[in-house]
Amino acid sequence: MKKVAVLPGDGIGPEVMDEAIKVLGAVQKKFSFDLAYEYADVGGIAIDNHGQALPPSTLRICENSDAVLFGSVGGPKWESLPPEQQPERAALLPLRKHFDLFCNYRPARVFPSLTAACPLRPDIVGEGFDILCVRELTSGIYFGTPKGREGAGPDERAFDTMGYSRSEIQRIARMAFEAARKRKGKVTSVDKANVLTTMVLWREVVIEVAAEYPDVALNHIYVDNATMQLVRDPHQFDVMLCGNMFGDIISDEAAMLTGSMGLLASASLNTEKFGLYEPAGGSAPDIAGRGIANPIAEILSAAMMLRYSLGQGEAADAIDKAVETTLEKGICTVDIAVDKSSTVSTGEMGDAIVAAL
Amino acid sequence: MKKVAVLPGDGIGPEVMDEAIKVLGAVQKKFSFDLAYEYADVGGIAIDNHGQALPPSTLRICENSDAVLFGSVGGPKWESLPPEQQPERAALLPLRKHFDLFCNYRPARVFPSLTAACPLRPDIVGEGFDILCVRELTSGIYFGTPKGREGAGPDERAFDTMGYSRSEIQRIARMAFEAARKRKGKVTSVDKANVLTTMVLWREVVIEVAAEYPDVALNHIYVDNATMQLVRDPHQFDVMLCGNMFGDIISDEAAMLTGSMGLLASASLNTEKFGLYEPAGGSAPDIAGRGIANPIAEILSAAMMLRYSLGQGEAADAIDKAVETTLEKGICTVDIAVDKSSTVSTGEMGDAIVAAL
Ligand SMILES: CC(C)[C@H](C(=O)O)[C@@H](O)C(=O)O
Ligand SMILES: CC(C)[C@H](C(=O)O)[C@@H](O)C(=O)O
Repeated sequence: MKKVAVLPGDGIGPEVMDEAIKVLGAVQKKFSFDLAYEYADVGGIAIDNHGQALPPSTLRICENSDAVLFGSVGGPKWESLPPEQQPERAALLPLRKHFDLFCNYRPARVFPSLTAACPLRPDIVGEGFDILCVRELTSGIYFGTPKGREGAGPDERAFDTMGYSRSEIQRIARMAFEAARKRKGKVTSVDKANVLTTMVLWREVVIEVAAEYPDVALNHIYVDNATMQLVRDPHQFDVMLCGNMFGDIISDEAAMLTGSMGLLASASLNTEKFGLYEPAGGSAPDIAGRGIANPIAEILSAAMMLRYSLGQGEAADAIDKAVETTLEKGICTVDIAVDKSSTVSTGEMGDAIVAAL
Repeated sequence: MKKVAVLPGDGIGPEVMDEAIKVLGAVQKKFSFDLAYEYADVGGIAIDNHGQALPPSTLRICENSDAVLFGSVGGPKWESLPPEQQPERAALLPLRKHFDLFCNYRPARVFPSLTAACPLRPDIVGEGFDILCVRELTSGIYFGTPKGREGAGPDERAFDTMGYSRSEIQRIARMAFEAARKRKGKVTSVDKANVLTTMVLWREVVIEVAAEYPDVALNHIYVDNATMQLVRDPHQFDVMLCGNMFGDIISDEAAMLTGSMGLLASASLNTEKFGLYEPAGGSAPDIAGRGIANPIAEILSAAMMLRYSLGQGEAADAIDKAVETTLEKGICTVDIAVDKSSTVSTGEMGDAIVAAL
């Protein structure tokens, strides 16, 4: 029996997690498979209960699982901590590194029934767009050494190192090309090769890897231009391949442009298909505990988990379809509702998706 | 007599430069002052004529001037050069470093008569927004050492260093707070202090500098969140203070969001008030030579030059006002026209602005 580490975290995390587990229960029945769940604290609640955002006990539970289903972490309670001890950073970065989760998929798509929620002009949005950001997640300037501080007074200096090796670029590039093959067959590699030595190597290696995929089209774009092109015409993109830092920036912009932040899932994978699955949005402390959060991002994260880590592609497809159907029926939580007077609660959204399965 | 180095460059650069010189001529008459212009090659045309994007002769002319009025550089002809030899990079980076142009102002505002050109939904745009990006331009990962490549085979690795000293952060932060004082009194510092050691120091120093400006409000935002907030509600920003890399990204996104790329100027200054002034947009080779480019960005860049480097604030104000008046009359080049059948040429736009002076 496959094992899932369930890490609800802070804010709306626990509420939306309940709905994901509800939907997982329903597909388990429907497709006759079992999952064992083990719950653990992470983020702010783990700081409160165990003195650290990622306690060893939580890490052990993850190690003994086939996948991690993650809610969200952080909130005002922990905002006065030094930036590097903030729950988000202190929970996510060590998890990514520990499990070598180098490949981060962040789909950013406009759901057809929700084009009106998109912040772009209707003539730009059209029928909606569908971008997959493939972000390298365990190297680059996030993890480069040396980094530190030196000197004192006005000359005191802080520094970080951005670095990529050929093999690190190869493995993430291959993931992007593989994904493009199953989509519209186009990879746009985001770099800053006109300024950064690291990005010159990045571009070289991506071009080499592209030769293994003659059926996939490749183009290159500078990161500054990418932020503009996303706004001007998001339809031009299929798969966007990014290093760690640029992927952080680009995937967030793309996600917000869809207008469907509460609906976007993400997956972080290693070479063994072990993965961590989490919504693209944050812990939304302002609406936590009110039963109005949109659980769809967590539910679609659970679907990605079934597909990539647990070998249950059919069940994953069923969830994706049930979500589409539910949205097409006009069933909306308040974040995506045009008519704010007719919305469903977090739990009702979960129920509606179960009913649509 | 103040001296101006005029570097038209490539693409639409020479066409829009002609109009800026035309408008400068008109304000010189009106406000009775003289300027001496010296023209020089830069960018692709300099590669063609002198074998390098920034020839020593051009640099000498700049050194002997009080300001540099820059057009734009680059185009398909030079696209096959290695990224680091591209005209843009090979002209701009050495110019910035040579003259210590550490302070880059990039206004991103929606012109009131042009809200319809904005790619965001009308209810988000409202009456338009007005953001000033203050970008550090001579340090950070653009210029940090060491950088290079090492090793071979799959382990070959490339790396760059991001670094900032306390004094570098202080001087750019002061420029942002000074600017905010003359605007809406709000600075948003963009960083990634939850991941980068450099950005922890950045935030510390910005907070220290803020104490010198009790009349200015300060908040901090992570760069990934900044790309989202710009899309969600650009009105929340007044001055955005950024390091070199994040400023490159954020200022481009903000510029594109205005929908008025052809109207945006920029200034790059050192402590001696020497500056380089250039449009935010590129060389637009696709429309070069057709007399349809919008000269307003170059004309407003000339106005910034009068204000910041040449001590002619009144003349600068007059140009700004003439541009507003012209736009309010509905006089449009094709890029900003709603009715594409009634547009003016590059030269006619210059004439209209002169007439409105
Ligand atoms: C919390 C932070 C360290 C993290 C990142 O920058 O990677 C987050 O922004 C993300 O994108 O998952
Ligand atoms: C051409 C390039 C080196 C430059 C930069 O990245 O600074 C450009 O994008 C800019 O913003 O002026």
